[in-house]
Amino acid sequence: MLTTKDSLIYPEPLRPNTEDAESEDVWGFRDTRFSINQKGHATLLGRRYELSGKELPRLLPWIRETLGIELDPHDTFPSSFPTYIPPPQENLAFHCAIKKFLRPDQISCEDRARLRHGHGQTQEEMFAIKYDRLARTPDLIVSPESEAEVTRLIEAAKIHDVSLVPYGGGTNVTDALRCEAGETRMIVSVDMRRMNRVLWIDPLNQMACIEAGAVGRDIMMQLAGHGYTMGHEPDSVEFSTLGGWIATNASGMKKNKYGNIEDLVLDVTVATANGKLERATCVPRESIGTDLRRLMFGSEGTLGIITSAIVKLFPLPEAQRYGSILFPDFESGFAFMTEMTAKMAPPASIRLVDNTQFQFSQSLKPGSSGWRARKSAMERFFVIKIKKFDPDKMVACTLVFEGSHSEVAQQEKAVYEIAARHRGVKAGSENGRKGYQLTYSIAYIRDFLMNYYIIAESFETSVGWADALPLIANVKQRLAAESRRRNLPGKPFITARVTQVYRTGVAVYFYFGFYFKGVDRPSEVYLELENIAREEILRSGGSLSHHHGVGKLRQAYLPQVMSATALKWKQELKNSVDPTNVFGVGNQHLTGPRM
Amino acid sequence: MLTTKDSLIYPEPLRPNTEDAESEDVWGFRDTRFSINQKGHATLLGRRYELSGKELPRLLPWIRETLGIELDPHDTFPSSFPTYIPPPQENLAFHCAIKKFLRPDQISCEDRARLRHGHGQTQEEMFAIKYDRLARTPDLIVSPESEAEVTRLIEAAKIHDVSLVPYGGGTNVTDALRCEAGETRMIVSVDMRRMNRVLWIDPLNQMACIEAGAVGRDIMMQLAGHGYTMGHEPDSVEFSTLGGWIATNASGMKKNKYGNIEDLVLDVTVATANGKLERATCVPRESIGTDLRRLMFGSEGTLGIITSAIVKLFPLPEAQRYGSILFPDFESGFAFMTEMTAKMAPPASIRLVDNTQFQFSQSLKPGSSGWRARKSAMERFFVIKIKKFDPDKMVACTLVFEGSHSEVAQQEKAVYEIAARHRGVKAGSENGRKGYQLTYSIAYIRDFLMNYYIIAESFETSVGWADALPLIANVKQRLAAESRRRNLPGKPFITARVTQVYRTGVAVYFYFGFYFKGVDRPSEVYLELENIAREEILRSGGSLSHHHGVGKLRQAYLPQVMSATALKWKQELKNSVDPTNVFGVGNQHLTGPRM
Repeated sequence: MLTTKDSLIYPEPLRPNTEDAESEDVWGFRDTRFSINQKGHATLLGRRYELSGKELPRLLPWIRETLGIELDPHDTFPSSFPTYIPPPQENLAFHCAIKKFLRPDQISCEDRARLRHGHGQTQEEMFAIKYDRLARTPDLIVSPESEAEVTRLIEAAKIHDVSLVPYGGGTNVTDALRCEAGETRMIVSVDMRRMNRVLWIDPLNQMACIEAGAVGRDIMMQLAGHGYTMGHEPDSVEFSTLGGWIATNASGMKKNKYGNIEDLVLDVTVATANGKLERATCVPRESIGTDLRRLMFGSEGTLGIITSAIVKLFPLPEAQRYGSILFPDFESGFAFMTEMTAKMAPPASIRLVDNTQFQFSQSLKPGSSGWRARKSAMERFFVIKIKKFDPDKMVACTLVFEGSHSEVAQQEKAVYEIAARHRGVKAGSENGRKGYQLTYSIAYIRDFLMNYYIIAESFETSVGWADALPLIANVKQRLAAESRRRNLPGKPFITARVTQVYRTGVAVYFYFGFYFKGVDRPSEVYLELENIAREEILRSGGSLSHHHGVGKLRQAYLPQVMSATALKWKQELKNSVDPTNVFGVGNQHLTGPRM
Repeated sequence: MLTTKDSLIYPEPLRPNTEDAESEDVWGFRDTRFSINQKGHATLLGRRYELSGKELPRLLPWIRETLGIELDPHDTFPSSFPTYIPPPQENLAFHCAIKKFLRPDQISCEDRARLRHGHGQTQEEMFAIKYDRLARTPDLIVSPESEAEVTRLIEAAKIHDVSLVPYGGGTNVTDALRCEAGETRMIVSVDMRRMNRVLWIDPLNQMACIEAGAVGRDIMMQLAGHGYTMGHEPDSVEFSTLGGWIATNASGMKKNKYGNIEDLVLDVTVATANGKLERATCVPRESIGTDLRRLMFGSEGTLGIITSAIVKLFPLPEAQRYGSILFPDFESGFAFMTEMTAKMAPPASIRLVDNTQFQFSQSLKPGSSGWRARKSAMERFFVIKIKKFDPDKMVACTLVFEGSHSEVAQQEKAVYEIAARHRGVKAGSENGRKGYQLTYSIAYIRDFLMNYYIIAESFETSVGWADALPLIANVKQRLAAESRRRNLPGKPFITARVTQVYRTGVAVYFYFGFYFKGVDRPSEVYLELENIAREEILRSGGSLSHHHGVGKLRQAYLPQVMSATALKWKQELKNSVDPTNVFGVGNQHLTGPRM
C-alpha cells in the first residue's frame, strides 16, 4: 500500500471480555439460556438481549398446539454432556517442534476444549455431544498469534505428518469441523481467534485490514468506533469469524445494500502448504488472469489457512429504520417481493415469513399488559376484522432501510406503494425490529427445545423466482408426508421464509422440527428427512446451499449438482495446492492421496 | 432449469448483415475510416456514426500544435499490408479428423484470414501487419456451430497434438492472440462467432442464455428487442464477444449501475481438455465450495473454450440522460469524484478527463456555423471570462444517468449539488453525449494517425483514491522525461482520465502517443516507453490492469504483482486442467510441459 502511513489508523487491540464466555453444550453465550419458570412460562435467562429477563407466556402453548404435544416442563430428556471424548492421539515429534515457537498457553489438549473444536452446530453434532458421541475429535488445539506462527505450524505439520483444521467460531451447520473417524494422523485444531485484530483502517481508500480470527461482533464494534461498518451481518455474527465467512462463502442480512462476502472482501492472505498467497497492493478491481484468491471462497478449510483479509468499509448509515408489512397470504407477499425487486433497488434487508413463522414470532412476544396489550389487541382487530385477514393464512414481511435520510424516505415510499398493490398493510417499525431481533434468540431456542424431546434444524437454498413457490410447497408436502409415513408423534413443524432477494431469484430458509419422544435414533431420523428435503429442493430447481455451504453434510450431493469435469478440477486443484493433504478436514469429499 | 418451458422466449437467430464487414488492416468497420479531404480537413468517411460525413476542421491543427509537428497530408507512411504471412503448417491427420464433422465452409486456411486471427489491436501488432511482420500465425481457422463440434475439435486436437486458440472479436490489446514463434504444433484458431445465438430469455427469472461467440452489438440489439439489456457496454462492444469478455475479466462503461462481467454472468459452460464444465440449474447465488467457473474469468484462452453463458437481464431504463460538468482543474474534478462516490450511489457512468483530453474532444467537434458557432462561442465566453477558467487547465466530467424518472432526477440533483461545491459548472447534456459517442470514433483515429507517422496506444490501471493523483502525475512526468531522453521529434501526447469509480479507488485510462518520423524501430520504442510507464504505475500503487488483462504484453510483470505461491498455483491449475497444453496460446506465461 503506497498510501502514506500517516493516513492509516491503527486501532488498539480489544481487551478480552470475560462476560462473553460461550456455552460448551449449547449455542450461544453462557449467560443466556431459555428456561421454564415456576409459572410454567418460557423465559430467557440473562441480561444480554432485549428479550432477556422477560416472560414469554405464549411460547409453550403455541409449541404444544403446533406440534400437538403435551410438553411437560418436568419431563425432560436428560443431557449426559459431555459424553465420551476420545483420548488425544499423540505425535511427540510435532509437539516438540511447535513448543519451539508457541508458548505453553498457546497449546492445549484439554478434553472439553478438544470436544468443542471437533464440531459445529448441526442437530446431529449437538445431539451427539449430549446423547450419543463423536467418533473422533482433534487431538491438540493450537492458538497462533501471528502469520509467522501459522507458517511454522504448517511446516511442522508437513514434516511430521499432521492434519491441520482451521477453527474460527465453530458455528458451521455442515459438519465442516467434524473429524473423519478414519484419520490416523494427529489432528490439530488451529484456533485462529487470537489473530483477531483490525490491523489498519484506511479512511482515504475506504478499506481495512483485519486478521482472519476476528469475530463478527468485535469487528462491528471496532469499526463502528471509527464510524464504519463492513456491512456483513450473518445471523452468527456474534461468534463467527472473518476467515470462516470467506471459507464458507457467507451471506449477510444486509447484502442488498453491502453485498455478500465475495463483494466485500478485496484481498485475502493465505498460508498454504507451499508458501503464502498474498498481494502487495490492494486495488478496487483488476484483470490479471484467474484470481486465485477466489479459490479460497467456499474452500471450507481444505486449501490453506486464511490469516487476514482486506475488506471494504462503508460509513455507518445516516438513517436506519425498520418496517413491517402484513399480507393476507404468502402468495400476495411473494408477488410483492417479485414486483419490488424488479422495479427498485431493494432495502438493506427484506424477508417474507410464512404464516407458521409469523405465528411463531408472535408467540415470542413478551407478556403484554396495559397499554401494550391494548395496542396489540387493536392491531389484531384491525387486521383480522377490518381487513379480513385470516389469522391462519396471513404472513409478514420485515424490512430494514439504511442510507441517507432522503434515500431511506424514498425507499420506504416506493416499497409501501408497491406493497399496497398486493394488499399489504403497514404494521409499523416496532414489529419489524422485533422480527429481526428474534433472529438472535431463535438460535438458543433449538437447543432449549431438545431438552423437551424436540429436534429441529434450519436449512436453506437459492432458487429462481419462477420455481420458488413450487419448491416451498413441494418441500413442505414431502416432509409432512414422510413424517406421517414414519409415524412420528404429534405434528411436524415446517416453515419457510424468503430471506434474500436477487434480480434472478431468492434465498429460502426452512425450519423443520418434530417431537421425538419414543422415536428410535431421532437424530438419524432427522438426517434422513433433511436429506429427503434436500432431494426435493434439488428436484424443484433449488441449489445445494445459498450460504451455509457443503461441509460433509451435503457432500454426497455434489455429483448431482456439479459436472464430472468440475469435480475432477476440484480434486486436482486440491492435489496441486495441498499434495499431502495437510488441510485434511475432508470437506466436500476433498481428500489426499492417503485416504 | 425447471421454469416451465412455456415461459421461456426463444429468439430467432440474427440474419448476418453484410454491411457490417470489418476492416482487415485497421480497427473497425470497413465502411468507416478517417481521411483528409481536399480542404486539408480531417473527415470521417461512411455513414455509420453521428460524426460520419462531417468535417472536423480543428482536429489536425490541434494535433499539429499538441505534437509540435507539420503533419503534411501528402507525407504519408505507406502501408505494405499485408506484409509477409507465414505459410500454413499442415497436420493432415487433424485435418482429416475434423472434416468428419465440419463442413468445408467451416474450415479455412486463407492467408489474410489467418493473419487476422493471429493478432489483436496492440500498436505493436497493428504496426507489424503493415510495416513489419508477425513471426507466426494460425495455420487453420475452424468455425464451430455447436457445443458438440467444439467438444469434438478438442478431442481431435488432443489426439493429433494441435494447439487450439479460441477467437472472438480479436479486439484484445494484450497480444493475447499472438502466436508463439516457437510453437511447433499446428495452431488452429477456433472462431466462435457462428455460435452467436441468444438461446433463450427467461423473463420470470430475469436471465438469458447466450452463446459465447455472440458479439456485443448483436446481443444489445436482440435483448433490446425484448425490452432488456445485459448492462455490459465496453468500448469494444461493436466487435468483442461474450466469451472474450469472460476470458479477459472485462469491465463496461456502465458498471456502476449493472456491475462488471463477474457480476453479470451467472453461469458459464466450458469445453475443456477433460470434458465439459456445466451446471444443470442456474441460481442467483450459492455456496457449494470453490466456484470453478470463476477460474475462467481472466483465463485468456488458456484453460478451455467458453461455449455459452447465462447472464442477468435488466429492463431497459425508463430514463437515460447525459450530463457534463466543467471544472477549473483536474484536482477540483477529482475532489468532486471522491466526495460523490463516498456520499451516493454513482450514476451509471462518470468519467473525468484531463485538460489535454478535454481539448482533444473539443477538436473533434464538427465545423460549426451560424447558431451552433454562436452557442459554442457563448459557452466558451462564459466559462473562460465569467468563471475565469484557464483554457489550459480546465477539465470535463461526463456522465450518464439511467433509471426510473425519479431515480434519475434524484441522482442529477445530488450530483450537481456536490459538483458545485468543487467549482463545477454544468455544461449540458449535449456535451456529455458527444463525449461518450467520441469513444467509438477515437478507436479509428489511432490507426488513421499511423499513416502520418504518429504512434499511439491506450493503457489503464486501477488504484486506490489516495494514490491516484500522484500516480497520474508520476506517469506523465516519467513519459515526458523518457521521450526527451530519446530525443523523440516534437512533443509527446500524454493524457489521462478517471474512467471508473469504486468505493475504494478508481480506474485510470491513459493515452500516450508520439511522432516517429526519423525514429528507428518506432514500435519497439513505444513498447519500451509503455513498459516504463507500467513500472511507474506499479511503483505508484496501481495494478497491472483494471480490465484489459495480461496476455503476453504484461506477463513479464506477473512475478512483481503476484506471490510466488500464487504463480505456482496458477501453473499447477493449468497443468491439472490442461495437462498437454491443448489451449496453447501461452498467455500469462502459462505453458505446457512441452515448452
